[in-house]
Amino acid sequence: MDYCKQFRVTPGSKVDLSQIDAGYKDGQKSRATAADEIKAYQKKMQELQYLMYAEDKRSLLICLQGGDAAGKDGTIKHVLGAMNPQGCRVTGFKVPSHTEAAHDFLWRYHRATPERGQVAIFNRSHYEDVLVVRVHNLVPEEVWSKRYEHINHFEQLLHDNNTHILKFYLHIDAEEQLRRFKKRIDDPKRHWKISDSDYAERPLWHEYTQAFEAALSKCSTEHAPWFIIPSNHKWFRNLAISHIVAETLESLNMQFPEPTVDINEIKQKYHEMVEEENGK
Amino acid sequence: MDYCKQFRVTPGSKVDLSQIDAGYKDGQKSRATAADEIKAYQKKMQELQYLMYAEDKRSLLICLQGGDAAGKDGTIKHVLGAMNPQGCRVTGFKVPSHTEAAHDFLWRYHRATPERGQVAIFNRSHYEDVLVVRVHNLVPEEVWSKRYEHINHFEQLLHDNNTHILKFYLHIDAEEQLRRFKKRIDDPKRHWKISDSDYAERPLWHEYTQAFEAALSKCSTEHAPWFIIPSNHKWFRNLAISHIVAETLESLNMQFPEPTVDINEIKQKYHEMVEEENGK
Repeated sequence: MDYCKQFRVTPGSKVDLSQIDAGYKDGQKSRATAADEIKAYQKKMQELQYLMYAEDKRSLLICLQGGDAAGKDGTIKHVLGAMNPQGCRVTGFKVPSHTEAAHDFLWRYHRATPERGQVAIFNRSHYEDVLVVRVHNLVPEEVWSKRYEHINHFEQLLHDNNTHILKFYLHIDAEEQLRRFKKRIDDPKRHWKISDSDYAERPLWHEYTQAFEAALSKCSTEHAPWFIIPSNHKWFRNLAISHIVAETLESLNMQFPEPTVDINEIKQKYHEMVEEENGK
Repeated sequence: MDYCKQFRVTPGSKVDLSQIDAGYKDGQKSRATAADEIKAYQKKMQELQYLMYAEDKRSLLICLQGGDAAGKDGTIKHVLGAMNPQGCRVTGFKVPSHTEAAHDFLWRYHRATPERGQVAIFNRSHYEDVLVVRVHNLVPEEVWSKRYEHINHFEQLLHDNNTHILKFYLHIDAEEQLRRFKKRIDDPKRHWKISDSDYAERPLWHEYTQAFEAALSKCSTEHAPWFIIPSNHKWFRNLAISHIVAETLESLNMQFPEPTVDINEIKQKYHEMVEEENGK
């Protein structure tokens, strides 16, 4: 199955998350059969990351969004962690700092976009400003409602500068979130992570779903598509994302650049150097 | 063998690189036997990186130095790439930008130091300012000669803020550098990388050696030791570095923090939430 097509939100379409099965796992596939496929996609990702670095013409921006416990950290650790860290920068976005909040909402995201030849991963992204901000009325509707268009323009700017954008919404259902919360409180090794604010957003599930649907509907474009990844099964999430990243990079048909120098001259220079050293 | 002790430059000692075998491979060890050891150290590194993130009390700074073709990029790709990219940032330092050059020499390095709980890797580091700068007389001797002390003070500052510092000098000999240059020109896949400036530093081998010896001698301290890694054999270099990073992290005796909340209260909250949802 081509997950690039299957999970891509068609630009202009209206997303209804209740119609999308978060537990989907593509028929006969299982965690065991997926493991080898994931490894192969990761290897491809690594090779193509190197090629992108060599080509030095474009960059890749991967945005991860999803509710609490949807698996953003796990996706980085188990899928995108295969990238060479020398060409890959992860930025997590939490509550804005004083300086960040003193600028327009896109300022801090723009600073973290990838340079030519590099990959940037956003753990949460500029979409927070039409998600948590909208759900909690942190700014008036007349402000957040304009942001969808600002976001599309921003992504167009990046795209026109040869930044390829992949946006993944990690889709879990309410029951799966509850199972993951339960696992956390039952595991003493994770107790250090638990905070008073856990579950705070859970009663707002419906409001978040509406906000996600709006963002997915208004901001999936040809140049910066959203993908809705069924994520109840972590292994399937990993398979789908590694597939989409690897196939997207491959579709760019990148090429190693031609040598910028006359290789024969360089060979000559090398031999002269060796002779001179031996003569010393 | 404990490579942490074996390859550490004793503070105050005078380094003579001609006395150190770049081809060392610790007796019976081979590429094949090393592979499993490296994997085990990487696994340990990953677990301890997570613990450092959880503990949120200290950070790790790894500096890689070495001449052309010494293996800085390879070390990142094959050893340090095992780190979770979410907590690990690689910064490469090339010719300073206009803005960077308009500040004191440590300014750009300071900006890239790791935040609490994180790992930073410097591909080339603040030592460039007493290496290439010294060899090419880019600043007068009275300027660069003061920098060793500035560097020691800077590293003391970081250490006092709980940043653990490991500095690796990748030691290859002149013959091995020549073999690696030869491999590059014989491999068409690497021709895109070749530039006119290749081999430009080779005639300055002796001057660089002197500059490295000065830096290794003057700036190996208890709080920020230098390690001289025999690097003619890439697999041995990888083994030694993965060993030192893993063992250093282990020696910190880090602990998962105590929960900041009453776990029973959280469990209660969880059950109330579930009941309320079911009652709806």
